[in-house]
Amino acid sequence: MKTIQDSLAQLAKLETDTHGRDFLLTWERTDSEIRALLLVAEILSELHRAGRSLRVFESGLAISIFRDNSTRTRFSFASAVNALGLGLADLDEGKSQIAHGETVRETANVISFLAEVIGIRDDMFLGEGNAYMRQVAAAVQEGFEKGVLHQRPSVVNLQCDVDHPTQSVADLLALKAHFGSLEALRGRKIAMSWAYSPSYGKPLSVPQGIIGLMSRFGMNVVLAHPEGYGLIPEVVALARQNSAKSGGTFTVATSMEDAFRDADVVYPKSWAPFSVMQRRTPLLRQGDREGLKALERECLANNARFKGWECDEAKMRLTRAGSALYMHCLPADISGVSCAEGEVAESVFERHRIGTYREAGFKPFVIAAMILMARVKNCTAALRRLAKD
Amino acid sequence: MKTIQDSLAQLAKLETDTHGRDFLLTWERTDSEIRALLLVAEILSELHRAGRSLRVFESGLAISIFRDNSTRTRFSFASAVNALGLGLADLDEGKSQIAHGETVRETANVISFLAEVIGIRDDMFLGEGNAYMRQVAAAVQEGFEKGVLHQRPSVVNLQCDVDHPTQSVADLLALKAHFGSLEALRGRKIAMSWAYSPSYGKPLSVPQGIIGLMSRFGMNVVLAHPEGYGLIPEVVALARQNSAKSGGTFTVATSMEDAFRDADVVYPKSWAPFSVMQRRTPLLRQGDREGLKALERECLANNARFKGWECDEAKMRLTRAGSALYMHCLPADISGVSCAEGEVAESVFERHRIGTYREAGFKPFVIAAMILMARVKNCTAALRRLAKD
Amino acid sequence: MKTIQDSLAQLAKLETDTHGRDFLLTWERTDSEIRALLLVAEILSELHRAGRSLRVFESGLAISIFRDNSTRTRFSFASAVNALGLGLADLDEGKSQIAHGETVRETANVISFLAEVIGIRDDMFLGEGNAYMRQVAAAVQEGFEKGVLHQRPSVVNLQCDVDHPTQSVADLLALKAHFGSLEALRGRKIAMSWAYSPSYGKPLSVPQGIIGLMSRFGMNVVLAHPEGYGLIPEVVALARQNSAKSGGTFTVATSMEDAFRDADVVYPKSWAPFSVMQRRTPLLRQGDREGLKALERECLANNARFKGWECDEAKMRLTRAGSALYMHCLPADISGVSCAEGEVAESVFERHRIGTYREAGFKPFVIAAMILMARVKNCTAALRRLAKD
Repeated sequence: MKTIQDSLAQLAKLETDTHGRDFLLTWERTDSEIRALLLVAEILSELHRAGRSLRVFESGLAISIFRDNSTRTRFSFASAVNALGLGLADLDEGKSQIAHGETVRETANVISFLAEVIGIRDDMFLGEGNAYMRQVAAAVQEGFEKGVLHQRPSVVNLQCDVDHPTQSVADLLALKAHFGSLEALRGRKIAMSWAYSPSYGKPLSVPQGIIGLMSRFGMNVVLAHPEGYGLIPEVVALARQNSAKSGGTFTVATSMEDAFRDADVVYPKSWAPFSVMQRRTPLLRQGDREGLKALERECLANNARFKGWECDEAKMRLTRAGSALYMHCLPADISGVSCAEGEVAESVFERHRIGTYREAGFKPFVIAAMILMARVKNCTAALRRLAKD
Repeated sequence: MKTIQDSLAQLAKLETDTHGRDFLLTWERTDSEIRALLLVAEILSELHRAGRSLRVFESGLAISIFRDNSTRTRFSFASAVNALGLGLADLDEGKSQIAHGETVRETANVISFLAEVIGIRDDMFLGEGNAYMRQVAAAVQEGFEKGVLHQRPSVVNLQCDVDHPTQSVADLLALKAHFGSLEALRGRKIAMSWAYSPSYGKPLSVPQGIIGLMSRFGMNVVLAHPEGYGLIPEVVALARQNSAKSGGTFTVATSMEDAFRDADVVYPKSWAPFSVMQRRTPLLRQGDREGLKALERECLANNARFKGWECDEAKMRLTRAGSALYMHCLPADISGVSCAEGEVAESVFERHRIGTYREAGFKPFVIAAMILMARVKNCTAALRRLAKD
Repeated sequence: MKTIQDSLAQLAKLETDTHGRDFLLTWERTDSEIRALLLVAEILSELHRAGRSLRVFESGLAISIFRDNSTRTRFSFASAVNALGLGLADLDEGKSQIAHGETVRETANVISFLAEVIGIRDDMFLGEGNAYMRQVAAAVQEGFEKGVLHQRPSVVNLQCDVDHPTQSVADLLALKAHFGSLEALRGRKIAMSWAYSPSYGKPLSVPQGIIGLMSRFGMNVVLAHPEGYGLIPEVVALARQNSAKSGGTFTVATSMEDAFRDADVVYPKSWAPFSVMQRRTPLLRQGDREGLKALERECLANNARFKGWECDEAKMRLTRAGSALYMHCLPADISGVSCAEGEVAESVFERHRIGTYREAGFKPFVIAAMILMARVKNCTAALRRLAKD
């Protein structure tokens, strides 16, 4: 429990303003708050490893709204809220319910009378997911101010069109664990690279979340993708500013090889082209199935030109000492295993397979930390109580 | 906590016989029991507002059976059982399982070995929902008497064909809060009025629940609807008797205007004609899709004759001082928002929107109160423990 | 509480090695462990009857994976984990997720970070269900050994292609309760008999579980079925060995009448022919709908030759004093009630109906006992704490 005491001491020194707030984008949080979040997640993980209860609530509801399929994030959220002592209630939302603002305002309030937290995944349409989360947050804020709700639940972003903060913070925690400290990340090169996948339309939020967060800790961030696969320009600009401020660098490469050269960390992952996502949204809204099929055909044909963007042994040999840390949010498209040709060669993935499971293992504790910091006024005191005896 | 102490003192004086029983119809409960129920719900709500835990169970199962879609009631029930410390298990019942009595008897028992409460929503067919709840109650009673079950779970009506007690009691609590006391309801006029909606087949249980309960507290209850939209005759007769006994009045009006004149409270809401519901049940049973479509066409055409039954500004001006309390169980069909022409004008609804959310906010506490009174022998003592310190 | 103290004293004397292990087949457990399991289940049941809390966990996740519809087992598992203080998370697995081993390995780990137990039902295909459970167990074992998981969750078999241990142990507990002790089972004749049902493809795991377990306690086990309806040969051989070792007998009969003659217990239940299950598996894998339909027609036609295999009053009169105990895992196919011609005559079932509910009532406590023995190091001490004051 020595590590826990050290972490608690560090935590007590950090200034944070998280109580009662939502967690929607990592870049809305100060460096100090991110550092505190990592410490809280580490303490919770260490307590759990030591067999301690993480229960801080006697009861209370955690609501999940998943507008896209999810296994990992669903179980991470379920695990986190259960560990803290909350009960889970899933809102299985009909498509029609988002048709007009009235319903979001109303629904957000009538489900929240005893809610502590609302976790939302909405990553399908560019320009919509994060906006929806803010609509929900505004609705419960109004409800709280006008006496509808006794408490104002906190909204936690479980992946939107812009960011995937529970993933990127878990990944940062994995990097901290791998290299020993946040300070040790300084000067390390991380390659966030597009990779080929036979599927279509994967969200941009993981690469955006990674470049938006890792650029804040002095890393040399390289974003690599084929022409036409750029991310939301505002997020790329933000990553560039972060790097300048944190003493790192931010560059864009046009080949996976360039990105991987001397990299300490590689994160090869498929995503859809920004422009395709923009064209897809109105088609989905109109229910234009023919249009969607044509767009998919076009996009897959274009994708197929970039089958060389596979994280294989040759490219891994380009990384620092040929042994960069491989990261992935899972599930990966593994060539010859889950698809004929994919994001990563089987031998590379197999060597790092257990590492990617460990990486995923930080997520439940990051979510629990987000909830704890949003809902408990004196977080350090609460953790001290859990650690006592 | 002064309010809580006052309410506890009042509660201690009321005679109730609720332990181990079901809650199926408000009119099966004495006035004293209804008053106690309101007090318990208020105490739970005040405790929650004060940030206190409402946990009275260490574990135990609450089963929900929803035979119709539901968001509000589902979350109200989930919130209530979680707050009390119970776990929720939803029975996702196949249509076939009600085919014969054998299965209801069997299923009710084999799911109830560790159950404290069974909440049921079954409001689709006239003559069926309440009967089904009684079948379930009889089955677990038999199981308890014959040593199958260690405890006999209580059945709570979450809306049936006859009554919607969690709604009507929450509405009564909203009225008590609005006017200051139950005594202040005496002589107040409440207009339970049919309203136009482009949808078809809404259950009768809300208006029946309202007239069956509000008539017991000296209110002047007016039921208004177009010809052919009458409620179950027995419930109307009961409301009439209640009014006579409680010193109020009960009248039936044939226009929304007449009902609204000088009303203190208006409750404009659509429902299906009783006779249509009666014709619909055998068609549904036979799976006669053509017959159902023809009936829907006929009903919607008939409905369309009554588009004037909208709660608009002109009608609201007829109410006492032009400022009656507007009530609705939500979701309302709002003209120009959720439909072209509906139950209520947008400006009227918007003015009362937050009020309807507050009205909905009583429901989780009413459900929790029903469960507490059914499952805990000395309810006052349990609440005192929650209120202590 | 005298019974509880007696049972605790007996329990303390039994040698068991169950902590941290899975429960996949009863025959992987020693007689002493089975006896301990019965005692723990009885103690939990008695504590519950006395209104005591069974809570031993502050939090923690129980994961369920149901690859086949289930009401009874689902609720038994939900009840058991709730009673112990765990939260339930159901993995609603897509069909595609079992397509290759990679995904099972990965999914098992990424859902298990805070899991205590994983309950799995997978009884559709011969050769698959139990194998899948072992894949999941191996995956979390690897994850635990390599530091992915802080704890290694236990897998509990909620019915597979080979065994249905929660059912057979609950049935053994019902027999122990009926006859007074395990010792009283010695020399009793139990007839596990095939019975006619208009349905097709019922799993073999119940009869296999029954003959595999009851043969260990000195009973005279008779397995009866029409030609072609044999069980997995290895399980039949195992039952034969068990009987020889335990001082009982094991015989195979070719008519229900022979099996029932002088039986103390009858268990008439339909199942699919082993050979048909073997032919069905590749058809299902290939999605060969025509082939499946043809096989079903053939099988139902064959089935229809054995409509005489009904547990009727005449056959019941053949049993010891005409009053054998009738057992069934439910739901039974009752002639004239749930089908025209089925496994059991209405009058026979009705006489034993409540008995079958009681039989089902042991299951939640058996599951809770399996979890407790797998997860709590000193089970006797934990039960003593629950029993205290």
